[in-house]
Amino acid sequence: MILTVTANPAYDVTYEVAAVRPGEVHRVTTAHLRPGGKGINVAAVLRQLGEEVLASGFGTMAFEEELRAAGLRAELVTSLPHVRRTVAVVEPGRTTSFWEPGTQLPADSARLLLDRVSELLTSAACLVVSGSLPPGAPDSLAADLARLALDVGVPAVVDTSGAALRAAAVVPGVVLMPNLDELEELTGPCRTDADVVAASDRLVAAGARAVVATRGRDGMVATDATGTWTTRPPEVAGNPTGAGDAAAAAVARGLARGLPLPHIAADATALSAAAVTAPVAGQVDLERYRELTDAVEPRRWHARDTEEANR
Amino acid sequence: MILTVTANPAYDVTYEVAAVRPGEVHRVTTAHLRPGGKGINVAAVLRQLGEEVLASGFGTMAFEEELRAAGLRAELVTSLPHVRRTVAVVEPGRTTSFWEPGTQLPADSARLLLDRVSELLTSAACLVVSGSLPPGAPDSLAADLARLALDVGVPAVVDTSGAALRAAAVVPGVVLMPNLDELEELTGPCRTDADVVAASDRLVAAGARAVVATRGRDGMVATDATGTWTTRPPEVAGNPTGAGDAAAAAVARGLARGLPLPHIAADATALSAAAVTAPVAGQVDLERYRELTDAVEPRRWHARDTEEANR
Repeated sequence: MILTVTANPAYDVTYEVAAVRPGEVHRVTTAHLRPGGKGINVAAVLRQLGEEVLASGFGTMAFEEELRAAGLRAELVTSLPHVRRTVAVVEPGRTTSFWEPGTQLPADSARLLLDRVSELLTSAACLVVSGSLPPGAPDSLAADLARLALDVGVPAVVDTSGAALRAAAVVPGVVLMPNLDELEELTGPCRTDADVVAASDRLVAAGARAVVATRGRDGMVATDATGTWTTRPPEVAGNPTGAGDAAAAAVARGLARGLPLPHIAADATALSAAAVTAPVAGQVDLERYRELTDAVEPRRWHARDTEEANR
Repeated sequence: MILTVTANPAYDVTYEVAAVRPGEVHRVTTAHLRPGGKGINVAAVLRQLGEEVLASGFGTMAFEEELRAAGLRAELVTSLPHVRRTVAVVEPGRTTSFWEPGTQLPADSARLLLDRVSELLTSAACLVVSGSLPPGAPDSLAADLARLALDVGVPAVVDTSGAALRAAAVVPGVVLMPNLDELEELTGPCRTDADVVAASDRLVAAGARAVVATRGRDGMVATDATGTWTTRPPEVAGNPTGAGDAAAAAVARGLARGLPLPHIAADATALSAAAVTAPVAGQVDLERYRELTDAVEPRRWHARDTEEANR
């Protein structure tokens, strides 16, 4: 089973309107609400792929029930007073989003989550910790969760940002999935592919098992102690929200199966592209995924690439 | 006790942002949520005035608990699957609002509300039915509630719009509180004060006990079988949301006390202005209200005013 953790969940709300006019009242024609958050999206993609998956993290009892009603196995620490919303106001050709701040974490909740995840890890093949931490959570929470997994021999993927990412980046054996902004926050400006490779190398030298840097249309750069591989995504049009979560799902599945990094990077690139063509975050276009699986080839990065890039 | 009914409640949500930029993601700095809806606002104003008040209508159990936690007596039909939100995105100098559609009313809920209100009316001195009806409610619901009250000798104030207002307008003995748009929907274009007076006269002739037409900064026009009075509001700056609900609170209180219409209209105008200077709908600035109470004078409308206005 793959275990996902969402520390800062959110209801994904979509409002359809004819046009957004600042300063005016908009009567929303249709409103959709679904339980979400990055680790929830990872779990939903894995479920769609037929993997056994369990979603953990924080929430309310109602939120947990809604996840289960949506077909996801969920074991949350239901200590939040409420779950925040991310509101996407959709008009033809444009989306305007309002993200509520995270719900303040009650005292002792972090400890309860570590205990819960510790139990769940006994039957886990991989742990994925996705998304930001809520206010009140210790900056070390994602790192502490990863350490729990690694201590019992379970691979740990961390996809977060800011102080939580800085803390996780020094956990020996962790797999990191920064986007370009997050990588730059860790290691400084990355202007070229060679900069990304150098930054990833430094993180691997500092103890990370692997770094899968995700760069949207520019593809991924995957680095471990044995080398670096780059992938180019196929041209796809659609909604990029959730593409990173699909990539994390592929990485977790690959690690659970013990696949080599270049294979994992190619699979993550294909699954990510298939998420772009699906309408909703947490879903992939399975037919497109099957088409793309053989189309993405990992390309090994050589030292001379770095020399050329720097010339 | 004054009984208010809110058939289409909403959580009033306020998002503070630096600036609204269509097409972008906004991280909301603070988000506030409170249980609201027009009849809830009427009840909150009455409670602030020290009146005994009870809020009824539709809701969820959580919504009812939140009303009680906020200090309001509430007896709802808690059959709604959820309560919609009205989101106000506030930036300096401008507010952009998104109103979710009402929650579909489950079958039999209208009957349950009529039964509940029927019981509560035994100890009521006035009934106020405020706001729109949710999808699935019969257009006659506000009219039916008013009839229940009038049948047992309790004055009934209706502040609604559209088909619900058309149905309520023909209930003998009802007190109507249309704004200018709603009045025009009932009777046709009202370009002058004289048009408003003529429209109100027609509604009174058709059976209404009184019509209090609310026109924001242009003041109110109050009409019953004994005559018409106009009021001019004092100059105030602030948030006009909730001013109409404060006016309905004043009208309900005046009817419960058996006060004459010109007195009620002046009081409603003062209380309405004191709601504009309060920051939140459902609150009035009590100090300002005391200052304004003597400042608003009802002016009797004479037939010669109509002649002059039409000249």
